[in-house]
Parts: sequence; C-alpha cells; structure tokens
Amino acid sequence: MNGRLFVISAPSGTGKTTLLRQVMTGIAGLAFSVSHTTRLPRDGERDGIDYHFVSRQEFLEMRDRGSFLEWAFVHDNFYGTSLQEVHGRLGQGLDVILDIDVQGAAVVRRSAALEASHIFIIPPGLQELERRLRGRGTESEEKLRTRLQNARKEMEAARDYQYLIVNDVLDEAAEVLRAIILAERAKAHRLPDGNPIMLRLDR
Amino acid sequence: MNGRLFVISAPSGTGKTTLLRQVMTGIAGLAFSVSHTTRLPRDGERDGIDYHFVSRQEFLEMRDRGSFLEWAFVHDNFYGTSLQEVHGRLGQGLDVILDIDVQGAAVVRRSAALEASHIFIIPPGLQELERRLRGRGTESEEKLRTRLQNARKEMEAARDYQYLIVNDVLDEAAEVLRAIILAERAKAHRLPDGNPIMLRLDR
Repeated sequence: MNGRLFVISAPSGTGKTTLLRQVMTGIAGLAFSVSHTTRLPRDGERDGIDYHFVSRQEFLEMRDRGSFLEWAFVHDNFYGTSLQEVHGRLGQGLDVILDIDVQGAAVVRRSAALEASHIFIIPPGLQELERRLRGRGTESEEKLRTRLQNARKEMEAARDYQYLIVNDVLDEAAEVLRAIILAERAKAHRLPDGNPIMLRLDR
Repeated sequence: MNGRLFVISAPSGTGKTTLLRQVMTGIAGLAFSVSHTTRLPRDGERDGIDYHFVSRQEFLEMRDRGSFLEWAFVHDNFYGTSLQEVHGRLGQGLDVILDIDVQGAAVVRRSAALEASHIFIIPPGLQELERRLRGRGTESEEKLRTRLQNARKEMEAARDYQYLIVNDVLDEAAEVLRAIILAERAKAHRLPDGNPIMLRLDR
C-alpha cells in the first residue's frame, strides 16, 4: 500500500525544523523527503540527511531532465524535491513529509498525480517571528528585512492550506502535527479499495 | 465562536463507550450530547448524564414538536438527539460528540444546518465482537444474534464515514480519536471568516 504525502510549509523562523524533528522521532512509518538545494550547508547540516547539497549546474541539469516534483528559487538559491525521492518512499508504504515553501506547495497542489495533506505552520505573531530571527543572529539586517517581508507574504498563502498550526508552545504544536498525521491515517477513504470493512471481518 | 460537531457510531460491543470516556477526560472543550431514550437505565446509568430517560409518550411528543435533530427506533426503543442540547453546547464554543447509530448519523449527514466530522469505530473482527458481547453476558442468545446481524449491516455503513478507527487496543484507538479531534480543530477553514492569519498578526 502507498503512503500518504504531507506538505508542510512555514515562514522562516517559525520553528518548523525543530517541530518536524520532534514529530518525526515519535511516529513510525514516517519519512522526510530530503530536498536538493544549491545553498551552502549551515553548521551541522549533513549532505543526504538535511539536504542533498548540489552545485547550481547539477541542479539545473536535474530540473531540465524533469527530475523535480517542484523546485523554487528562494533567497538566491534553488530548492527542489526530486520525484524519485518521493515516489520511492511512498512506494515503500512510508508516509512522506515534504518540507517546502509556499510556491512549491502550490505546484504540488496543482499536480494531479499526488494527493497530499497541506499543513501550514505559523508563528504566534510577526513580532515574535522577528524576535526569533534576530535571536538566531545568522542574518544581516537587510536579509532579515527581506525575510520578514517574505514571511508576511507567505502567511497570506496560509488560506490555501487545509491545516493551520500555531507554533506558540512547541510541545502543543508538535501534538497537533502528530494528530493531523494520525487522523489522516484514519481517513476511511485511505483504506484499500472496495469495502474497507470486509477486510477486517475476514480476520 | 461555535464548536465543531463529531458524529461517532459503532456496532454494539465495539467498546465505543469506554473509548469515549477515556477521550472525553483528556481533552478540554469537549462535551457529550446526551441523548433522549425510552429504554430503561442499565445498572449505573444516570439520568441526564448517560441519557435523558423519558417515557415513550414524552419522546413521541418531543418528536412531533420537531425537537430532535435525529431520532431512531433501535432494539425496540427510541433514541433521539435534541436540537436544543446540541445547539446549546456548540453555541458555548464547545466541541460536541454525538454518539449515535448509523441511521441517526445518516440523518445528520443529510442535514444542511450542521457540518460534522463522521467517525466510525469498528471491532477488529466479527468474532471478536461476538466474544465481547457474550463476555458482557447481559443478553439472551436471540438478542445476541439480532445484535450481531445488525452489527454486520451497520459495518457496511462505515463507508459513509470520513474516519475509521479499529478498536483493537483501547489506548491506541483512544489516541486516534483524540488525534482526529485535534486535527479537525487545526483545519484552516474552521477559523473565523476572512483571512485567518491576520488575526494572528495583530497580536
């Protein structure tokens, strides 16, 4: 049986990465789709685990071969989700988490081939978002302004998502994300074809 | 803001009551809709808490006044959900659990006035269901046969529900039910009208 696809987006600094890490360790049968990117690894990021780090030339070649389910150009870098990555894991029966931006999510939504649950994570407020970004201290003032402007625009995209999670208290947000995954697994129409009940009765 | 409605059905002996009790105590803002019934109280059942126990005459008068969202005649007794009960709690912002049979659920589904999430709980198998009913030891052989036949028929109705929960291990089933409620609360379109995000940004 094929797995389910969960598309998760959030403005930068919403705490998405921490949230995802917490949920991934608590649920069996769940896999990350590891994105390809042309940006440089940050401290501690590992190739093939956090991202597939590739050169711009490699990325564009993959893109031109049609290897990406979606790709985007954000903050001066390319990011993409390879079809092989996603289909491989779904085919193993794993539920796959796609951690992509709002542009990528829109592309997946328009793709008829893949049904997905779309989840948007928001910070409790823009001021809180700014505080978090400054706290990280990895950006210049100009880059920070750009990020905040993008965040504002990205948050308007939230209306296109099925689920909204406010990441105010991490444990509570993680519980809701976990709940969404379990609930989607319990959706009747996700069970194998035909009368789903009869399968149970045969036991 | 109004609460959400959760319609929950299960064949008799599926363990629904135990399951609901466990989930109700773990989630804030959740209320039972207490049904009206003409059947006699079982040991330990309290009027106004487990059911509103009424006479057949009272029940039929309420029905004829249009007081019920849905009502049904099952195992020789009337069961009904009063509109006042449901709207009252929803209006307080509580999420309401409607514990009703498949006939009642079908009526609620056809009612345009109330949007609800429909959840069906199934036993791991019919043999297990029979074992549980016999274990309860409260029924004659004939009544038990009738219940099992009804259960078989009711389980075919499961395909009309959005969510299926297999109640094999109680704790796991309770976790899924809890997850469904939390996930539904996170549905973007459940937030107040307009752009739901702007409300957050104003904080």
